[in-house]
Amino acid sequence: MDTLAAAFTWLDYAAVAVFGATGAMAAAQRKHDMVTFAFFAAVTGVGGGTMRDLLIGAPVFWVGRPDYLIACMLAALAVWTFGTGQARLKILLWLDALGMAAYSVVGAAKAISLGAPPISAVIMGVLTACFGGIVRDVLAHEPSVLLRRELYVSCALVGAGIYVILHTFGMQDLWTGVVGFAAAFLVRAAAIVWGWTLPGFPGRGKQRT
Amino acid sequence: MDTLAAAFTWLDYAAVAVFGATGAMAAAQRKHDMVTFAFFAAVTGVGGGTMRDLLIGAPVFWVGRPDYLIACMLAALAVWTFGTGQARLKILLWLDALGMAAYSVVGAAKAISLGAPPISAVIMGVLTACFGGIVRDVLAHEPSVLLRRELYVSCALVGAGIYVILHTFGMQDLWTGVVGFAAAFLVRAAAIVWGWTLPGFPGRGKQRT
Amino acid sequence: MDTLAAAFTWLDYAAVAVFGATGAMAAAQRKHDMVTFAFFAAVTGVGGGTMRDLLIGAPVFWVGRPDYLIACMLAALAVWTFGTGQARLKILLWLDALGMAAYSVVGAAKAISLGAPPISAVIMGVLTACFGGIVRDVLAHEPSVLLRRELYVSCALVGAGIYVILHTFGMQDLWTGVVGFAAAFLVRAAAIVWGWTLPGFPGRGKQRT
Repeated sequence: MDTLAAAFTWLDYAAVAVFGATGAMAAAQRKHDMVTFAFFAAVTGVGGGTMRDLLIGAPVFWVGRPDYLIACMLAALAVWTFGTGQARLKILLWLDALGMAAYSVVGAAKAISLGAPPISAVIMGVLTACFGGIVRDVLAHEPSVLLRRELYVSCALVGAGIYVILHTFGMQDLWTGVVGFAAAFLVRAAAIVWGWTLPGFPGRGKQRT
Repeated sequence: MDTLAAAFTWLDYAAVAVFGATGAMAAAQRKHDMVTFAFFAAVTGVGGGTMRDLLIGAPVFWVGRPDYLIACMLAALAVWTFGTGQARLKILLWLDALGMAAYSVVGAAKAISLGAPPISAVIMGVLTACFGGIVRDVLAHEPSVLLRRELYVSCALVGAGIYVILHTFGMQDLWTGVVGFAAAFLVRAAAIVWGWTLPGFPGRGKQRT
Repeated sequence: MDTLAAAFTWLDYAAVAVFGATGAMAAAQRKHDMVTFAFFAAVTGVGGGTMRDLLIGAPVFWVGRPDYLIACMLAALAVWTFGTGQARLKILLWLDALGMAAYSVVGAAKAISLGAPPISAVIMGVLTACFGGIVRDVLAHEPSVLLRRELYVSCALVGAGIYVILHTFGMQDLWTGVVGFAAAFLVRAAAIVWGWTLPGFPGRGKQRT
């Protein structure tokens, strides 16, 4: 179990750093300065988990443990140093998929451990995985990436949903986490590679953007 | 009193569902997929009450009772099924007015019951009624409906204000609620039918949008 | 010490009112009505401190003490009455610099007094100083002033950082506050007068806006 706990902790830091890097990328697009870089990295990296903790009434995870913020700063530094070339954007897209998959499970697991009912736990997983990116796009004044691209929120829903269902049926926690993570990541991978989408609203409306 | 409590509970679910439906409508405008539909419905439906609960330090109302989220999902399903034709938009405009009026009173009442002073309770009523719609418009990347149309925030202010004043003067809670609700709804109805507005800032500025 | 505490209290109200006035200014740009004016003033005035209190798990400062909201209303009334002429915008720019400098110190001090570790306390100072303005710009649907202008977030970082460092080294609280405040204000003043900026991201990207 110690190995598992350690793995989860590393996964958590890795997900924060990856999301932080996507925030720094957004700041790079507009050629912002170093401090704004760091600000975007921090907001995007810890935004989802912050919202989850506020909603379930837990102490906000990074306030007492600033190493999460340091992870975001390192991510911002890496983006500043290595730039945002095409190849790096592609790497980041895949890292983001890993981060999203990890967070959908971590978010749901934390909510369950604090006594949230199943449906709420699923929502917490989705929010943890998606909220940081939503705030990043709102602050960067760009149309939300989550709304315009292929499956994204849905992948987090798959990951959190599978985790919560397996957990409810009493499956051992290590495997529920692994299965939920893998499912979220694979659906997202398919969405990236083959452009998977769900059918849009069939009625009248503006062009989908 | 049991009838009253039951009526308030139903009003609460109805308001969540109505706001959820307006969120789904916003998603429909951009032809989003089913999951994004549900996401918008949930954020808009419970957003105002969530902000209220966070600010007054109460447990967030829907986290422990996911039936509120189910009400949002049903609202999203209804919009998906019945579409967003002109007649339905009109129905929704009126349902939204009912939801806003209900929430302005419910929000203020909850804040008072948790010991907030009168002015803060009025603000909580206004926030509960308006915040979900504000978040919806920010996420949908549209100019805030609340800012551009006829009286809206003001109607919530009327409802919450009257409720808090009557409550402070010791009027019985059933009637304070009914009077506040009716006042908020009637002012909003007048704004919809006759285009009521308050005078805009008289100095220089860009065109009002 | 009573003088100090009183000075801090007045500084706090003054900062809330000044930020409230910048919110009302944003509403004036679009010629909004009186209620929307007040709404913008309130959100901008108390937004940063609200976010700080939510994150550190303290009761939100204005909910139990509505005189902060009254300060925002007075600020909105002043903007409505005296207008937004060029000279007044300039005065406000300088008042905003004072408010930002005050808040960077007040925010960090409150976080430290509640046991937050140093790095988190610095972040809380920055958030308290900047978050209200960020929300104002998002709601007004304008590109964030914080992102496009000369040094701003950085000034708050200087103020909060110096305060926390001096405090950690055991310097007396009155002087840590004064030095942090002065540093934040002076850097901001230099940014206003001489257009100080930090170098932007050197790689490829869209034009900085």
